[in-house]
Amino acid sequence: MKPPEVLAWRDGHIEALDQTALPHRVRTLRITTVDQLVQAITSLAIRGAPVLGAAGALGVALAVRQARAQRWDEARLAEQVERIARARPTAVNLAREVAAVAARIPDGPAAVEAAAVAVGERAAAASRRISERGAAYLLGACGGGKLRIHTHCNTGGLACLGWGTALGVIRALHAGGALAHVIVDETRPLLQGARLTCWELGQLGIEHRLACDGAGPFLISRGLADAVVVGADRVAANGDVANKIGTYGLALAARRAGIPFLVAAPESSIDEATPTGQAIPLERRPDEEVTVPAAPAGTRALNFAFDVTPADLVSAVVTEDRLIEAERLSRASS
Amino acid sequence: MKPPEVLAWRDGHIEALDQTALPHRVRTLRITTVDQLVQAITSLAIRGAPVLGAAGALGVALAVRQARAQRWDEARLAEQVERIARARPTAVNLAREVAAVAARIPDGPAAVEAAAVAVGERAAAASRRISERGAAYLLGACGGGKLRIHTHCNTGGLACLGWGTALGVIRALHAGGALAHVIVDETRPLLQGARLTCWELGQLGIEHRLACDGAGPFLISRGLADAVVVGADRVAANGDVANKIGTYGLALAARRAGIPFLVAAPESSIDEATPTGQAIPLERRPDEEVTVPAAPAGTRALNFAFDVTPADLVSAVVTEDRLIEAERLSRASS
Repeated sequence: MKPPEVLAWRDGHIEALDQTALPHRVRTLRITTVDQLVQAITSLAIRGAPVLGAAGALGVALAVRQARAQRWDEARLAEQVERIARARPTAVNLAREVAAVAARIPDGPAAVEAAAVAVGERAAAASRRISERGAAYLLGACGGGKLRIHTHCNTGGLACLGWGTALGVIRALHAGGALAHVIVDETRPLLQGARLTCWELGQLGIEHRLACDGAGPFLISRGLADAVVVGADRVAANGDVANKIGTYGLALAARRAGIPFLVAAPESSIDEATPTGQAIPLERRPDEEVTVPAAPAGTRALNFAFDVTPADLVSAVVTEDRLIEAERLSRASS
Repeated sequence: MKPPEVLAWRDGHIEALDQTALPHRVRTLRITTVDQLVQAITSLAIRGAPVLGAAGALGVALAVRQARAQRWDEARLAEQVERIARARPTAVNLAREVAAVAARIPDGPAAVEAAAVAVGERAAAASRRISERGAAYLLGACGGGKLRIHTHCNTGGLACLGWGTALGVIRALHAGGALAHVIVDETRPLLQGARLTCWELGQLGIEHRLACDGAGPFLISRGLADAVVVGADRVAANGDVANKIGTYGLALAARRAGIPFLVAAPESSIDEATPTGQAIPLERRPDEEVTVPAAPAGTRALNFAFDVTPADLVSAVVTEDRLIEAERLSRASS
């Protein structure tokens, strides 16, 4: 079965798979205004750092069309473009790709649209190279064989276009006959692991088991994984990695178990302008994502959407261009 | 408002608060047969290591009554008592208290009932001493002030009768004006933190915030807790601690952050017969607790209900009788 298209530019509007409806419904959103796009991003209907970058890029094209139709002045257009860039704060891809495409606005709508569409195409192509480089790294680090991989959240085609980042590495191992199975964290509160990663792995026919987030470190301690592979929403200049909440505990466990902890991300997730993880803005989302429906009415939450894993716990970062041992990230990329 | 009674022996049957219905419904189960008791224990309507011990003890009294009414022979009675002891494998309290009360069967029903009721009374009294010793330990270890405590699962009156173990320590800090607030892990898959601990803290008027399990290690890394306090389902002779899945990641994070990781448990949870954590039987529960409703149909899970934290990550174990620095547990208790 042909997978549904995650994100596309179609006749002057955006079509996007509604990732809040998966796995039980496959529904495509038709997005024709900046308001609709911002709503789709904040609700996580559109999500995943590389897809956010691609969607933000298309959002600039959408804003330019809306500006012409509704006679926005330059300031209004700039303000609407800025709303897209700020729809979510942690993944650097979103603000970065919006800025890159917005810089083409003086060249006219056709140039903007071409630049916007190219962002997604580049992300898809990059994901394939990330996947293969990551798989090669793991086979070397683990000494070959069929690997058991622990992963978190969703980092496949749904998040990245193409093969994905961490899930792309898993897919490349599978394609090379070097994958035993995958352990997937459910990834509370929004369950992207349970809903999206299990769905993608099922579509690909890749063996997997779902685990609660709290179980991950223990499963690693009992030798049930040969490596941990995750994506990234932003990699700071010193190699600290912001990723979906729950990543840090896996990194601690991988270090104690002596297994590789690999971060797979496009170059667009590496942010030289952010010196360390302490400077990465971490999105805090509504309490209700955590409290409803189980907790007593009125319970308050601490709902950070991301955490930061210090570079010293990261074995390596693979991008479409490089393999970076984390402790050398700052030097290698300068 | 008077809290509902968690567990009681009433006119020859067991009354137990149905902990699967909280916080939205307060419902008491009337348990008159071994079958009903085993069902209540396996479904977690009755749960928490000390309460399991007390319920198992009352279960022996129930079995003796049922044996007389239904003319069971000795072998049948022994078999039914054994079913209670084996209803859940990880908390040593259950098998231990069942065995202790079953040893009184030759003394007749009245002796059995008296011994069974005494188990719960001892647990309640012990929890108060655990609570006060644990609070004193933390105030010393943290240098006083108002403490921010991170905890996991449910270890209050619902789990332990009386004040509780880890939640009892929190309650004792609160009673002494030495508690700032509590961070509570939701504790997937059955959400005892969100459902039960938030409910108990709300009843007690203790300030708290709910967090996803994956967030715990990160919140600790950012300095949001002064100490981690958890209960235990079994402490091995070497000090390894089996507790609700998700505990181990908190211990790793506490160690890296340099804050105390305290285990609060009754003496009945310490099992000298189990040399290390590797020998503790870890209950594996149905996949559906993890997969339903979010994951695609047919998804399989790895659903361990407990994990093991190695003794070297434990700052101390407090019981009703002792404060045991973990690395000395084996020697101190021999």
